[in-house]
Amino acid sequence: MPTPPINLHDYEALAEQRMLPAAWDYFATGTDDELTLRANREAFARIQLRPRVLVDVSHCDTRTTVLGIPVSMPILVAPTAMHRYAHPEGECATARGVGAAGTLMTVSTESACSLEEIAAAATGPLWFQLYVFDRANAESLVRRAEDAGYRALVLTVDSARWGSKQRAARSEAEAPQFRAGNFAEGADFPAVSLTWDALAWLKGITRLPVLLKGILTAEDAALAVQHGADGLIVSNHGGRQLDAVPASIEALPAVAEAVAGRVEVYVDGGIRRGTDVLKALALGARAVLVGRPVLWGLAVAGEAGARDMLELLRAELELALALAGRPTLASIDRSLVKLP
Amino acid sequence: MPTPPINLHDYEALAEQRMLPAAWDYFATGTDDELTLRANREAFARIQLRPRVLVDVSHCDTRTTVLGIPVSMPILVAPTAMHRYAHPEGECATARGVGAAGTLMTVSTESACSLEEIAAAATGPLWFQLYVFDRANAESLVRRAEDAGYRALVLTVDSARWGSKQRAARSEAEAPQFRAGNFAEGADFPAVSLTWDALAWLKGITRLPVLLKGILTAEDAALAVQHGADGLIVSNHGGRQLDAVPASIEALPAVAEAVAGRVEVYVDGGIRRGTDVLKALALGARAVLVGRPVLWGLAVAGEAGARDMLELLRAELELALALAGRPTLASIDRSLVKLP
Amino acid sequence: MPTPPINLHDYEALAEQRMLPAAWDYFATGTDDELTLRANREAFARIQLRPRVLVDVSHCDTRTTVLGIPVSMPILVAPTAMHRYAHPEGECATARGVGAAGTLMTVSTESACSLEEIAAAATGPLWFQLYVFDRANAESLVRRAEDAGYRALVLTVDSARWGSKQRAARSEAEAPQFRAGNFAEGADFPAVSLTWDALAWLKGITRLPVLLKGILTAEDAALAVQHGADGLIVSNHGGRQLDAVPASIEALPAVAEAVAGRVEVYVDGGIRRGTDVLKALALGARAVLVGRPVLWGLAVAGEAGARDMLELLRAELELALALAGRPTLASIDRSLVKLP
Amino acid sequence: MPTPPINLHDYEALAEQRMLPAAWDYFATGTDDELTLRANREAFARIQLRPRVLVDVSHCDTRTTVLGIPVSMPILVAPTAMHRYAHPEGECATARGVGAAGTLMTVSTESACSLEEIAAAATGPLWFQLYVFDRANAESLVRRAEDAGYRALVLTVDSARWGSKQRAARSEAEAPQFRAGNFAEGADFPAVSLTWDALAWLKGITRLPVLLKGILTAEDAALAVQHGADGLIVSNHGGRQLDAVPASIEALPAVAEAVAGRVEVYVDGGIRRGTDVLKALALGARAVLVGRPVLWGLAVAGEAGARDMLELLRAELELALALAGRPTLASIDRSLVKLP
Repeated sequence: MPTPPINLHDYEALAEQRMLPAAWDYFATGTDDELTLRANREAFARIQLRPRVLVDVSHCDTRTTVLGIPVSMPILVAPTAMHRYAHPEGECATARGVGAAGTLMTVSTESACSLEEIAAAATGPLWFQLYVFDRANAESLVRRAEDAGYRALVLTVDSARWGSKQRAARSEAEAPQFRAGNFAEGADFPAVSLTWDALAWLKGITRLPVLLKGILTAEDAALAVQHGADGLIVSNHGGRQLDAVPASIEALPAVAEAVAGRVEVYVDGGIRRGTDVLKALALGARAVLVGRPVLWGLAVAGEAGARDMLELLRAELELALALAGRPTLASIDRSLVKLP
Repeated sequence: MPTPPINLHDYEALAEQRMLPAAWDYFATGTDDELTLRANREAFARIQLRPRVLVDVSHCDTRTTVLGIPVSMPILVAPTAMHRYAHPEGECATARGVGAAGTLMTVSTESACSLEEIAAAATGPLWFQLYVFDRANAESLVRRAEDAGYRALVLTVDSARWGSKQRAARSEAEAPQFRAGNFAEGADFPAVSLTWDALAWLKGITRLPVLLKGILTAEDAALAVQHGADGLIVSNHGGRQLDAVPASIEALPAVAEAVAGRVEVYVDGGIRRGTDVLKALALGARAVLVGRPVLWGLAVAGEAGARDMLELLRAELELALALAGRPTLASIDRSLVKLP
Repeated sequence: MPTPPINLHDYEALAEQRMLPAAWDYFATGTDDELTLRANREAFARIQLRPRVLVDVSHCDTRTTVLGIPVSMPILVAPTAMHRYAHPEGECATARGVGAAGTLMTVSTESACSLEEIAAAATGPLWFQLYVFDRANAESLVRRAEDAGYRALVLTVDSARWGSKQRAARSEAEAPQFRAGNFAEGADFPAVSLTWDALAWLKGITRLPVLLKGILTAEDAALAVQHGADGLIVSNHGGRQLDAVPASIEALPAVAEAVAGRVEVYVDGGIRRGTDVLKALALGARAVLVGRPVLWGLAVAGEAGARDMLELLRAELELALALAGRPTLASIDRSLVKLP
Repeated sequence: MPTPPINLHDYEALAEQRMLPAAWDYFATGTDDELTLRANREAFARIQLRPRVLVDVSHCDTRTTVLGIPVSMPILVAPTAMHRYAHPEGECATARGVGAAGTLMTVSTESACSLEEIAAAATGPLWFQLYVFDRANAESLVRRAEDAGYRALVLTVDSARWGSKQRAARSEAEAPQFRAGNFAEGADFPAVSLTWDALAWLKGITRLPVLLKGILTAEDAALAVQHGADGLIVSNHGGRQLDAVPASIEALPAVAEAVAGRVEVYVDGGIRRGTDVLKALALGARAVLVGRPVLWGLAVAGEAGARDMLELLRAELELALALAGRPTLASIDRSLVKLP
């Protein structure tokens, strides 16, 4: 195991050593046979890059904007629950690390710290991921997020039920229990079946832009734009909801095509290398989100680990831009990749 | 190994511990190099699901009918021989467990209990799987099945000879010997070459609907409908007859297309997850049948094991319906799957 | 390891135990990285069978003719060198075993017993495989083969040089040395570059039919027919000549199509199961030839082993015919297989 | 491990035993996840050869010319840095070995011996690989190379930054340090972003032909010809620059098609067998270059090892020509290969 870590795989290996086994399993698990969990990685390995040469890449720039918000890299932090399983300071440490890396964090409804604590600690922009357990509760969370300065809402749409995380189920007994930061003690988290009405309702009670997270088909992408979504995140929930769905990177091209630039499209799931980011951008993503690697960074070195993990990934992306002959994000297009 | 089992793989692992090695091999074996046995599983893993979101899935309903018979789930029990190798109470325990799960059992001609004993024990509907060793013998079985209240006949058409089960052959010496419940002691079970005439004959001596089990091609599916079959089961006999034939799930789409809704089409072979059931339904099956997992449940916990295994699978299917955005079986269509 | 062997894999495992390591390596080796050696097996596993049902298969018949010669099965014995490495009685034992199985043996120029000894021992028809080291020598062999009653000549056309058998090269030092039966002591076996003239010359000095062994392309198949070849054997020399060429079963369809029935087409390479034979026949072969399995049978039990191995394979083929719904070889057609 | 080595894999295994681990890692490493490093080998294994028979191959000739320079084989030596990591005599030993094998060596800017020392030692033609760290420095290298008799310049165009060689990074601490032979002590090697102007500039200051090394797309191949390149080397830098790019043999056909014979096209990356060379020539390469195998030969036996490795490869190619029915390099065409 390397010290210090030089890539995200190193962070993964170190984090597995540091975390309690139950916490590790809680984050690492996929659902059922973990077909989709594995597919998220394997699909990236089958996509090839077509590098161009003798382009001036003396200055490569990874900066971009997401929904108009400037960030240092097209790499955001995906919402994940209960960061205290990874580090005692939980999402507060994460938010400081992410801000130090110059990018944006999406805070989970199920964070261990409260959304206000996280906003107070944060040094960069935040989005708030919303589960609508019931509308009153959700409206209260939306108000709190607005008041705390969150910049957008990310409505998760793939969780009408909780997927069956069978690896985690086997070690659950030993897991530490933390209270969810946004709720009273003993609150529970029922999965709720939402419909397109929920989007209309949410748009009606907030001026924040609303992204939908968990879109995997062109059909739903078209409906989402039609119903007023301000952005889409192509996601299979890290392989933690319906098993046997495509890798998110496999689903991205059709979604991007259906959206046709009308709103921004993001993708999460399986991104571990700067070249993975490059592939996602070439296939139509405005930016990517990383989930588990943030927790690995956090487990290894708290705020500094989260920041360092993101900076490693940004440096890999910058190097990849140079070696691919694409000095700016705007110069990336579909011709950069060859699909299998 | 988990206690209690949380999925069918757990049942498999526990059953292997509990069964006599020779009994295990008897059920587990495929023929020759077991290409088809493995293909049955591998083919499912290559089929992807395309989930839809923001559909109202607050109530998902797995109930359906098969040949007009109401069942709690589109998951039936395939005919398998000699359940006493798995549990002393044999098919009587199975029938009680299957009925308790609200679904239908297909009893094998080669059951260890007699078809009348099974019918007496059963708490749900039964079909009778028929081998025609000779017509007199078969007619007698048909009459007995009719008298005992069986609701359909399942004529196996892929067994003109017995396949060469070479793994089982190696451990046969140690296997316990049970008498076949439907026959006098010492009866033997010659494989017999049937022709389409056999279907006409069978239709002529019974008013029960007749399904053909073992169809793998569109050509035979068309002939079957033309010759009056009331339903088809796409099956490769669990990889126990001709080796090197397609996985049954691979063969299903062409069969379903050839049948074009004129009769109900079923499929068995390799179903271990609720998402597998979903894939089969999307590719044209009215329901699926499970074989070996029933024996695993039986070996682990008798009647309760058979029931629990089916209920686990039904719960997985219900969860999959919700996460796929398909609250009813009627809402499932071909667009739900992506073939490799 | 089973006793007695129940399939060709068992013979392989037993033979490896029985043979001297150097003899085993001599027969088992392929050339270079053994890509083609492995491909010969892997390609069969990717071809699927499409079985038909409810066909009268009460009598299945594996008998056929090859160049008009009746044989008990469409499974012949390929030429392989130096059978004394496998058994002290060498090709004489093989010939008795093959004849007892009712089929035909192709004797190698490099046999350990002389062609006359083999003919005297043989109880079935023989073909003679010819290497043309020089024309005088070859003409002498042809005369001797004619006089001894051989029924056809098999001219090997893929051996302008000897392939580099690197696995064998590493253990050569320990190999027993037998004199080649057809030559004076100390004779050597130069690989010789032949041209289409060689076929014309050979046809000019004999009335025996001449088959070409080692054709892998449609182009050469067409030329062979045009130059008067009486039959073709699609072969990559068991993966022992040019590495990285296709599996012979992969090369068969294009050759059969180019030949269009004008002469008989055979195939060898990787056949281990009755279903493999069925695949080859469906793809256009009149019969198949098996090489290494004959040596395994010979090593395990001499004449009886060679016979038993062939009879196992014939029984597998007969079973496969029945289960595929193809009671006669004439009923096999292209629709029986699905290529990857 | 064989003594003596009989193929390049043997050289690899022996070299790993002989080299210091840090030196081994320095040469063996690819970048990031080594996807491209592995792809370079795996892609060759998927390409099949289509051998022709009964062609006169009694004399096979591997001689050819590269940019008009006669060489004994279409196998040249790729530029690799710091041969003293492999052998104390460094590139001087390599150059003698390569010359003894009758072929051409490309000397790296980052050689351990100076380009003049290498030229003095060399017994065959040399090309000089050029990194343009700055134009003054590069012009000085060009002059020195011209003066020392180098026959062409190979401008590397895939190295605007140095790729991240993470396997090597982990063992760097222990690596021996040699001074780069062409520079004053303490010189460093900044990666520099070049543009097409660099080619124009270089063509303007030398009469030597200029090849571009590192082209992977048809688009850049067309631009290269348009900007006056005298030849192209399809290369992914041995998997040491941008990871996830295609195997160089995968990229070759499109490049060769775009160039359409206007200049010579070469390829390096993953060539370990004579059949690999044959595949590359059939797909449009004038010759191939080998990198790591030269270092293996050097590590195992210095000058003699480099020569022997090349002669093994030449002999394999000659054998492959004969077995493929292609006695001359001119007789090789696209019909010799089947792509996956």
